[in-house]
Amino acid sequence: MFNYTATYTDKYQLTMSQVYFLKGQKDTKAVFDYFFRKLPFSGGYAIFAGLEDLINTLDILRFDKPDLDFLKELGYHPDFIRYLENFRFTGNIYSSLEGDLVFPIRPVLQIEANIIEAQIIETLVLNILNFQTLVATKASRMRQAAESRNLIDFGLRRAQGPGGYYASRAAFIGGFDSTSNVLAGRDYGIPVSGTMAHSFIESYDDELSAFNHFAEVQPDDCVLVVDTYDTLISGIPNAIKVAKTMEEKGLRLRGIRLDSGDLAYLAKETRRRLDNAGLDYVKIAVSNQLDEYIIKSLLEQQAPIDIFGVGTTLVTGQPDAALDGVYKLSYSNGKPRIKLSENISKITLPHRKQVFRILDSNDKFIGADAVTMADEQGVDIMHHPMYPLKSLSLVNSIKEPLLHKVTGNGLRLINARSLTEIAQYSRQRLEKLPEEYKRFDNPHIYKVGISTKLQAERDRLIDEFKK
Amino acid sequence: MFNYTATYTDKYQLTMSQVYFLKGQKDTKAVFDYFFRKLPFSGGYAIFAGLEDLINTLDILRFDKPDLDFLKELGYHPDFIRYLENFRFTGNIYSSLEGDLVFPIRPVLQIEANIIEAQIIETLVLNILNFQTLVATKASRMRQAAESRNLIDFGLRRAQGPGGYYASRAAFIGGFDSTSNVLAGRDYGIPVSGTMAHSFIESYDDELSAFNHFAEVQPDDCVLVVDTYDTLISGIPNAIKVAKTMEEKGLRLRGIRLDSGDLAYLAKETRRRLDNAGLDYVKIAVSNQLDEYIIKSLLEQQAPIDIFGVGTTLVTGQPDAALDGVYKLSYSNGKPRIKLSENISKITLPHRKQVFRILDSNDKFIGADAVTMADEQGVDIMHHPMYPLKSLSLVNSIKEPLLHKVTGNGLRLINARSLTEIAQYSRQRLEKLPEEYKRFDNPHIYKVGISTKLQAERDRLIDEFKK
Repeated sequence: MFNYTATYTDKYQLTMSQVYFLKGQKDTKAVFDYFFRKLPFSGGYAIFAGLEDLINTLDILRFDKPDLDFLKELGYHPDFIRYLENFRFTGNIYSSLEGDLVFPIRPVLQIEANIIEAQIIETLVLNILNFQTLVATKASRMRQAAESRNLIDFGLRRAQGPGGYYASRAAFIGGFDSTSNVLAGRDYGIPVSGTMAHSFIESYDDELSAFNHFAEVQPDDCVLVVDTYDTLISGIPNAIKVAKTMEEKGLRLRGIRLDSGDLAYLAKETRRRLDNAGLDYVKIAVSNQLDEYIIKSLLEQQAPIDIFGVGTTLVTGQPDAALDGVYKLSYSNGKPRIKLSENISKITLPHRKQVFRILDSNDKFIGADAVTMADEQGVDIMHHPMYPLKSLSLVNSIKEPLLHKVTGNGLRLINARSLTEIAQYSRQRLEKLPEEYKRFDNPHIYKVGISTKLQAERDRLIDEFKK
Repeated sequence: MFNYTATYTDKYQLTMSQVYFLKGQKDTKAVFDYFFRKLPFSGGYAIFAGLEDLINTLDILRFDKPDLDFLKELGYHPDFIRYLENFRFTGNIYSSLEGDLVFPIRPVLQIEANIIEAQIIETLVLNILNFQTLVATKASRMRQAAESRNLIDFGLRRAQGPGGYYASRAAFIGGFDSTSNVLAGRDYGIPVSGTMAHSFIESYDDELSAFNHFAEVQPDDCVLVVDTYDTLISGIPNAIKVAKTMEEKGLRLRGIRLDSGDLAYLAKETRRRLDNAGLDYVKIAVSNQLDEYIIKSLLEQQAPIDIFGVGTTLVTGQPDAALDGVYKLSYSNGKPRIKLSENISKITLPHRKQVFRILDSNDKFIGADAVTMADEQGVDIMHHPMYPLKSLSLVNSIKEPLLHKVTGNGLRLINARSLTEIAQYSRQRLEKLPEEYKRFDNPHIYKVGISTKLQAERDRLIDEFKK
């Protein structure tokens, strides 16, 4: 993993913190909201990921000696540097559960801490959660497209540096079955898998010798890449020979991989030839610049593909490449706070809050989350955050609170969850979401509203500033 | 930095390596080429970055105890695991210099090593070089657009996890002046800078008190963000008050920052008001979803902006998000190797090679790189790699060899270069490139050709496979 220290932050966090410190405000309590304004990939939902990594990183986050020396060099005040020597995060975190579905505007997570701690960790919070949520969401879209087929993350070589390590984690949460990334497998318990590269074939004088050597050493997990020279003229016939030799020894060729050409055509042709040779058990894997749209198209064309290997678009979250998550002050020094903006969709929501998900009597999501003040016991009506005329009655509906206190005074309050548990939870949550929110084209818009009390508080603050 | 171990690789690298090991080929020498096929951002050049990080990482790359335990768990052969206990990279690296301009098809770097080492490090090589080259190139485009204005990297919060740490490094190579990323500043010696966030203003009951506190603590580096409530009605008038108070103490407000609204209009209006108040020395910084096109447009509109803060598009290399760099076998077991493909642009170049850059008598690049066999002493004509009828005479031109042996038997052969040296070298190289290769729309296409001897070798190998 990355060696995070507390200088994994933007300089202005430290500069503002120094002002707070030197102006006697180091114990001022503040609340910040983490949320995003736009769903990635023009989709209908996002999968929240990164929370376990965030909690674990905050737990060990300190300024080490090189950090403190560097801050001295940058001219920070000696008293402030002395204060940072004992820095650790001692605040509270109220968060959605990792793997849950999340939507724009509503807080995904809230940090309640002294203002210096809250400010210094902002960059880390955004850096971890924005990226893992982006990739988990992308992975989930690929899972929708691939239905029950096997999905393997092949992305590390095209990833944004060590972003790839965390991308493999997020991909598993979003529904991938395994990764080629050995280190991520080691550290996160993700199943690892892989086949062979063209270079392996090319390093031999002929394809068949390469296949045979591979099958001899890897009899239980032998997937042959068949497009190094010519898929149908050379690769498939040689793979069939190998499979037949294996059968004589009571072994089975596991699969072949197609990595170029027209994958729909080649998969069909390959399946036919394998079946004609009595090799109906040999799986077909494909790779080569796949994304959720290509996967969907291949299956719509009835391409008989068992395994999809996906790289670049998954681990970089193409085409978005970033989630626009922000971290906004909602309370400090005993008062609720907002950020005004000429763009009314950018006005923030004050106070510490709770979010309720609305379910129907069949335990399905109806497509609405209601944001309330933290201490509101329930919510009977929710209002559109921008258009006051639009509202939705929530009387008699089932309301599930979504923000849980996961860290108290800097200490973890929830049990650590394995990646498998998180992925399973995510799958269960997604099953409760109606299909129309999952489609790629113009998905149904999930409603996020605010309670009457929160609306009144926000409007009161806007009025105050207008005076 | 990231804790790289040798399992920072794709599983198939280990699986193929195990086959090589168990089949008695562990000492087989191989050569792999790192190159890319398409320039990022539809641009006219790319800036090569990541080499120093790669050399330093390879130097310490080992399988640690948890790695070896995990490989045992995955079922790798005990003899192979024992071999990996002593793994270290002992090969040669022939590389372009970091910061140089690089172009498609031609090798950017070649690895010559035993085939197991070369295979295991493939993922790391691609992961480091693809990403840093992408971001350095993006940064360079922003530098072109911003001309002599100050450019600050603000990207860490939207970066792809710790990709942001390396992005800050690459951005500096590409021409950025500083970063907000404190840890990258600490480790790479990049100047760090930053201003203040909206939350700082909001945590006070009024904007002016916030500005005053900030100016009192940060008199030498005070940049005020002026759009929290209303830029022209509140932010600028308050900033002018602060500047005047500072003047009374013999101090100077350094700048203001605009982070929303129409930046061209607001910058002009702000400049006018500052100048009318006798504050012509106060700089104007802008941020908010900038990229090279917006920077260019703002300056074309004569917006009086001194400092651009750029985040997401820089550190994620949007819209590309990845460079398609590949790593292809060109020699092994005493023989040149190629990969065939139905797509002739994907046929690889065999052998260890050299690349010559062609210069005119004024020491400017003429826009051509010639790829030759490694041992060719010169090259008098270069051929288009795909269209044999196209060729370019190089008689009497100046030819500069581009690939340098930077690592020999695993040991560094070139002096470590500071980031500043690399950035300066990159700037010098870019100055030699004619302007038409630097424009954003339909840039001139830089020619990459192959020598007669290399062409003959490649064609001979193609013929061999056709038989």
